[in-house]
Amino acid sequence: MALRVLGVDPGLTRCGLGVVDVQPNRSASLVAVGVVGSSSELPLSRRLLVISESIDEWLDAHAPDVLAVERVFSQTNLSTVMGVAQASGIVIAAAAKRGLPVAMHTPSEVKAAVTGNGRADKAAVTMMVTRILKLAVAPSPADAADALALAITHAWRSGPGSTSALGELTPARKLWLEAEAKARKNAEKSSRQRR
Amino acid sequence: MALRVLGVDPGLTRCGLGVVDVQPNRSASLVAVGVVGSSSELPLSRRLLVISESIDEWLDAHAPDVLAVERVFSQTNLSTVMGVAQASGIVIAAAAKRGLPVAMHTPSEVKAAVTGNGRADKAAVTMMVTRILKLAVAPSPADAADALALAITHAWRSGPGSTSALGELTPARKLWLEAEAKARKNAEKSSRQRR
Repeated sequence: MALRVLGVDPGLTRCGLGVVDVQPNRSASLVAVGVVGSSSELPLSRRLLVISESIDEWLDAHAPDVLAVERVFSQTNLSTVMGVAQASGIVIAAAAKRGLPVAMHTPSEVKAAVTGNGRADKAAVTMMVTRILKLAVAPSPADAADALALAITHAWRSGPGSTSALGELTPARKLWLEAEAKARKNAEKSSRQRR
Repeated sequence: MALRVLGVDPGLTRCGLGVVDVQPNRSASLVAVGVVGSSSELPLSRRLLVISESIDEWLDAHAPDVLAVERVFSQTNLSTVMGVAQASGIVIAAAAKRGLPVAMHTPSEVKAAVTGNGRADKAAVTMMVTRILKLAVAPSPADAADALALAITHAWRSGPGSTSALGELTPARKLWLEAEAKARKNAEKSSRQRR
């Protein structure tokens, strides 16, 4: 009954990939995490091919219900933003080709969701991801932790009340949302009983 | 003995696609031209899927020797540059997946190659493309003409002396370059004979 989310922090040198299973009661567990990428000395076409082949492998291997990608802004890091945008285009199209819903979240949305602070630094995000997923070792590098944070954020943010932002509702998501609503009701009931 | 080039002017609303066959004597003929794209009201994932499916169709249908893409700059048109970069990433990866060489040319390189003026306007580029390809009707919209101009530019610029910029030399290109060198020698010989 878990929602499986593949989070992607796009980039050419380091593209973070993280898969988590999130239960209706919001508890999340790690399925897979990694970083792919290539040297900036390679031709752009080779570098984009690495991203294209990697995302296809991850989608095949882990069969996520939804893809969550970091929303790229043209305002920041002008020197690398083109490569990031090209990589994100490839990743989004790969998911769309399989009929998967694609969601985008900004870095500050991710920081706010996992740490409670939209301006948290990378160390704080990594620490909270490690804690949320109950990992013995912190995921590294930061791009890997960011991908996991994105995946967690997406599952948490797309709960009841925010589904309209999603646009597309797959049968798996629908079931998950219903189960999450039930879990919430039970939690409220037991908290009332405790009073 | 022609070099077949697929030129792409990337974009989400209008992505220009143009295929030309260029002979070693630099004469060029139209194979196919078109524009694909989608409404800006659709979700980004759907829009990128249109680009992804279209480039695969064009690569299948026309089997070009090389892909030429407009080099995207982050400096210009900040509002649309992200979509352009995402589309170009998909197009480049699709060609790389098939083992095709990918070349990039700037708008001013294209303008200079087809009109002799790096600051030529769109009307001048369209007029010269129409003349070079001996078309009865000018290709329209401008994105379609730009894609053809890119393809012509690539074939012309990648002649002897500039091959190093290409990086990858397919057997077809090698043969074409040899034939072009021969055609040049013959042209020089006959020009000497005319004197």
